[in-house]
Amino acid sequence: MIYDLWYWPTIQGRGEFVRLPMEAAGIDYRDCARIEGVEAMQRHLARQPRAPFAPPFLELEGMRLAQVANILQYLGERHGLALSSIRDRQWANQWQLTIADLIAEVHAVHHPVAMSAYYDEQRPESARAAQQFLQERLPKYLGYFETLISEHGGAWAIDHRWTYVDTSLFQLVEGLRYAFPQRMATLTGDIPRLIDIRDRVAELPGIAAYLASDRRIAFNTDGIFRHYTELDAD
Amino acid sequence: MIYDLWYWPTIQGRGEFVRLPMEAAGIDYRDCARIEGVEAMQRHLARQPRAPFAPPFLELEGMRLAQVANILQYLGERHGLALSSIRDRQWANQWQLTIADLIAEVHAVHHPVAMSAYYDEQRPESARAAQQFLQERLPKYLGYFETLISEHGGAWAIDHRWTYVDTSLFQLVEGLRYAFPQRMATLTGDIPRLIDIRDRVAELPGIAAYLASDRRIAFNTDGIFRHYTELDAD
Repeated sequence: MIYDLWYWPTIQGRGEFVRLPMEAAGIDYRDCARIEGVEAMQRHLARQPRAPFAPPFLELEGMRLAQVANILQYLGERHGLALSSIRDRQWANQWQLTIADLIAEVHAVHHPVAMSAYYDEQRPESARAAQQFLQERLPKYLGYFETLISEHGGAWAIDHRWTYVDTSLFQLVEGLRYAFPQRMATLTGDIPRLIDIRDRVAELPGIAAYLASDRRIAFNTDGIFRHYTELDAD
Repeated sequence: MIYDLWYWPTIQGRGEFVRLPMEAAGIDYRDCARIEGVEAMQRHLARQPRAPFAPPFLELEGMRLAQVANILQYLGERHGLALSSIRDRQWANQWQLTIADLIAEVHAVHHPVAMSAYYDEQRPESARAAQQFLQERLPKYLGYFETLISEHGGAWAIDHRWTYVDTSLFQLVEGLRYAFPQRMATLTGDIPRLIDIRDRVAELPGIAAYLASDRRIAFNTDGIFRHYTELDAD
C-alpha cells in the first residue's frame, strides 16, 4: 500500500503537515508532483467526482482526500497516529484546526490583500499586517498551545506517544523560526514545552532521517512560512 | 440531553453554522451567552483542561468541543446528520473545511491587516482586498461548489437527505447575499443548484420556524458577513 501525495513540488507548504507524520510512522508514499510534475497534479486535482479545491491531496485505492486536518484525521485513525476514542479524536482535530488557523494567519501576513498577487505587490499592507500578527496574534496562539501542553503534562501534546499534533507543532515552530527569527527569539523563553516537543519530534528516527534527506525541501520565499527581514521584529 | 452552545450573543458569526443543523434536526440546545452574558462565556472558555482557543464551543456532559467543522462532525455522527462510512464522513468534513476557508476569506475582506482592529482603521486595505475577492476568489469557490452539487445530482449536496453541509451552504449564500448583494446578483445565474439548496434548507420545518423566530439574530456589521456598500461591486 502506497499513498500518492500531491502537492506543489518546490515548497514545504501545507503538504509538509502531511509528509511529516508519514515519515515519522514509516508510511509509504510517493511525492507525486515531484516525480510527475505540476501538470500531472492539476489533472489529478481536476478529476471528477469529488475533486478537491486545492492541494495537498492524498490518493489511495480510488479515494482522494484533501484538506490537511481531514487527511491527518484519516491517517491518524487508519495508522494509529492519534487517540482512538471519539472524544479524543475530536480533541486532536480541534488542535489541528487551531494550528491551521494560525498557519492561515501566517500566510495572510505576506498576502494580506491579494491572495493571488505577489508579495511585492502588497508590501505596505504586509508590513502593517506583520506588526499586529507578531505583537498580538502569535504570542496569543503560542501561549495557548504552551498552556495545553503544560496541563497535559507528558512528553507529547495529547498522548503518551507522538501523534500528528506533535509533528504539526514541530513544523509550526520550524516555520516560525525561519520566517520570524527575531520574534521567535524573544518568545522562546515563554514556550519551553512547545520547544521541547519540537526537539523530540526532530529526534524521532523517521523524522531525523527525513530531515537529513533531499526529500525535505528547504524553506523558501514561495511557501507559507517566508522570511522577509522587513516583516520580522523583536 | 441539552447542549450548551457558547458564542458571541449579538452576531450570527461562526456560531450560526452550529445553530442551523441543531435547529433543523430539533436538537435541544441553550444559546448560553444570550442568557448568561459574555463574561460567563469567557469563564467557560478559560476553564481547564482542554480550553478552546475561541468561541463557538459546545458543552455536553463535561465535554467541550470547539472549531465549527469539528463540532459539526461530532453532531453529524452522533445525530445522524451526515453519512456514516469513513470515506463519506471525511468527504463531508472536506466540504465543511473548504466552506470554512471561504468564510475566513470573507472575514479577511473587512479585516485584511489587523484582525483585532476595527474595519474603519483598515478601509483602504479592505477596498483592495474586496476587489480580488469578488472578482477571483468568490466565483472560484462558488463555481467549485456548484460543480460538486451538479455531479452529485440529487436535491442535496452529498446525500439523499440534508446534512450539515447543506445547512452550511444555506448560511454561506445568505451571508454573501447580505454582504455583497450586487456581486451575488451577477453570480446567481452561474450557481442555480447552490441556490436550490439554499431554498430547500430555508423550507425545512425546523429552519423555517427558526428563521421566523427571534432566535435568529439579524445580519449586522459586527459579524463575519458585513455589508459595506463601498466593498461591493458587480
